[in-house]
Amino acid sequence: MSQQAKISATAEPAAKRATPLYVVKIGGNIIDDPAKLASFLKAFAGINAPKILVHGGGKLATKLADQLGIEQKLIDGRRITDEETLRIVTMVYAGYINKNIVAALQAHNCNAIGMTGADADLIHAEKRKHPTIDYGFVGDVKKVKADIISSLLLQGICLVIAPITHNGEGQLLNTNADTIAQEIAKAMSENYQVNLVYSFEKAGVLLNAADDNTVIPVIDPALYEDLKAKQAIFAGMIPKLDNAFTALKSGVSKVIIGKAENLDALITGKSGTAITA
Amino acid sequence: MSQQAKISATAEPAAKRATPLYVVKIGGNIIDDPAKLASFLKAFAGINAPKILVHGGGKLATKLADQLGIEQKLIDGRRITDEETLRIVTMVYAGYINKNIVAALQAHNCNAIGMTGADADLIHAEKRKHPTIDYGFVGDVKKVKADIISSLLLQGICLVIAPITHNGEGQLLNTNADTIAQEIAKAMSENYQVNLVYSFEKAGVLLNAADDNTVIPVIDPALYEDLKAKQAIFAGMIPKLDNAFTALKSGVSKVIIGKAENLDALITGKSGTAITA
Repeated sequence: MSQQAKISATAEPAAKRATPLYVVKIGGNIIDDPAKLASFLKAFAGINAPKILVHGGGKLATKLADQLGIEQKLIDGRRITDEETLRIVTMVYAGYINKNIVAALQAHNCNAIGMTGADADLIHAEKRKHPTIDYGFVGDVKKVKADIISSLLLQGICLVIAPITHNGEGQLLNTNADTIAQEIAKAMSENYQVNLVYSFEKAGVLLNAADDNTVIPVIDPALYEDLKAKQAIFAGMIPKLDNAFTALKSGVSKVIIGKAENLDALITGKSGTAITA
Repeated sequence: MSQQAKISATAEPAAKRATPLYVVKIGGNIIDDPAKLASFLKAFAGINAPKILVHGGGKLATKLADQLGIEQKLIDGRRITDEETLRIVTMVYAGYINKNIVAALQAHNCNAIGMTGADADLIHAEKRKHPTIDYGFVGDVKKVKADIISSLLLQGICLVIAPITHNGEGQLLNTNADTIAQEIAKAMSENYQVNLVYSFEKAGVLLNAADDNTVIPVIDPALYEDLKAKQAIFAGMIPKLDNAFTALKSGVSKVIIGKAENLDALITGKSGTAITA
């Protein structure tokens, strides 16, 4: 809770920043497992503070594309979002997954609203420009509108965000859910003490990627440099950690990485890895 | 504008009721025609007043079900919403159609938010009970939450509602879009002068169902009884008209029936049929 003691330039933002906000990203491994998802949503509904859930897509979109005989194009391991794929992810992410999560949260007396970046103009993105690869309808986030988010949170409503944005010119865009969570966390950090929780399949940042018992409980910048120098961190974690430190520099109070099944323990600091400035 | 002159018990509701609100329902024939839909959305975005769009589903859901080899079950001409069909309509209505409408409205500088009845607990429904037919996951509307709608409208946001509701216990339900439009119109009529616009494939209520030039411009209860007695109205219109008069009795100011392509003219009273109390 040391973040609460931060002194701001004016009294009002300080008071506002004392209000915690949880921005929780869940990945595909939870989405694809109905029992784990149900248990996670119960825990999420129980967070007694303003909260935002950002969900990824899971394997449902790939499954539907297969059923419809639509070939998924990958370039350098990255999925290309052509028009047909965009139609599928819009249906699966913004329709099926988003609305079922919302209905499940309502059943736990958690008043949720499901949104994409197009809704209420929440997240503006632009179509990815790349010198050699045409990613298709993939969006890079340009702006998050914090005012409508605050307005909904103040009405006791939690947001459930699907990883679809728009360019303001009528085009929907497929957008990375990790990035959306981070950009929302940054945008909200002016008025809230933001805790950004990335849930994934591991128990946290591990010294040994194969052993969930080697979670590093806290990583600050000095330890991070030390671990990187010793090559003690799984290479795949480095972009996630770099993003976490970028978020902290942009005003986010804390980044927590761990298993979605342990959400309660992640929130209370009893599980996972806390990344701190 | 005689509705504006209505005298309410207290000053504040009277002032609120002076604010017009347009609740516009568009049917499948517009949804299925991209050029007509684009033109309609431009006209809708141009309505310079608080507004709500309720959309139906069109043929996309049936098309997707066919592609996936899911058989549509009909009993007495009514579609049965089994689990697979619910999954499809949730994807198509709440995902594909709803989000593309929202993105198109944003491109016209109309700040729209797409919602189902589960979002922000907007529309509670219960699974239809019928003595002999199991309609499956079909919902009958029980309650519309006017407060969240008003809050969004006051922030200059218009709502785009997909015909999916929930039962508060985690179950999404397929729900008739005409009914949703009517229930929203009724719920909002306490605080707004509500104009409920039903757009469909005909130019209005016709004396001759085959001739768009036989539109009846205004129908009041006396004329309606007269037309019914003379069997001068196409039988298929009678449930729509009965619903319109029910809405008027519940406080809705005006019901307009006509072609979506003529939305401008419907709003200004130059086209379609106005049903008045």
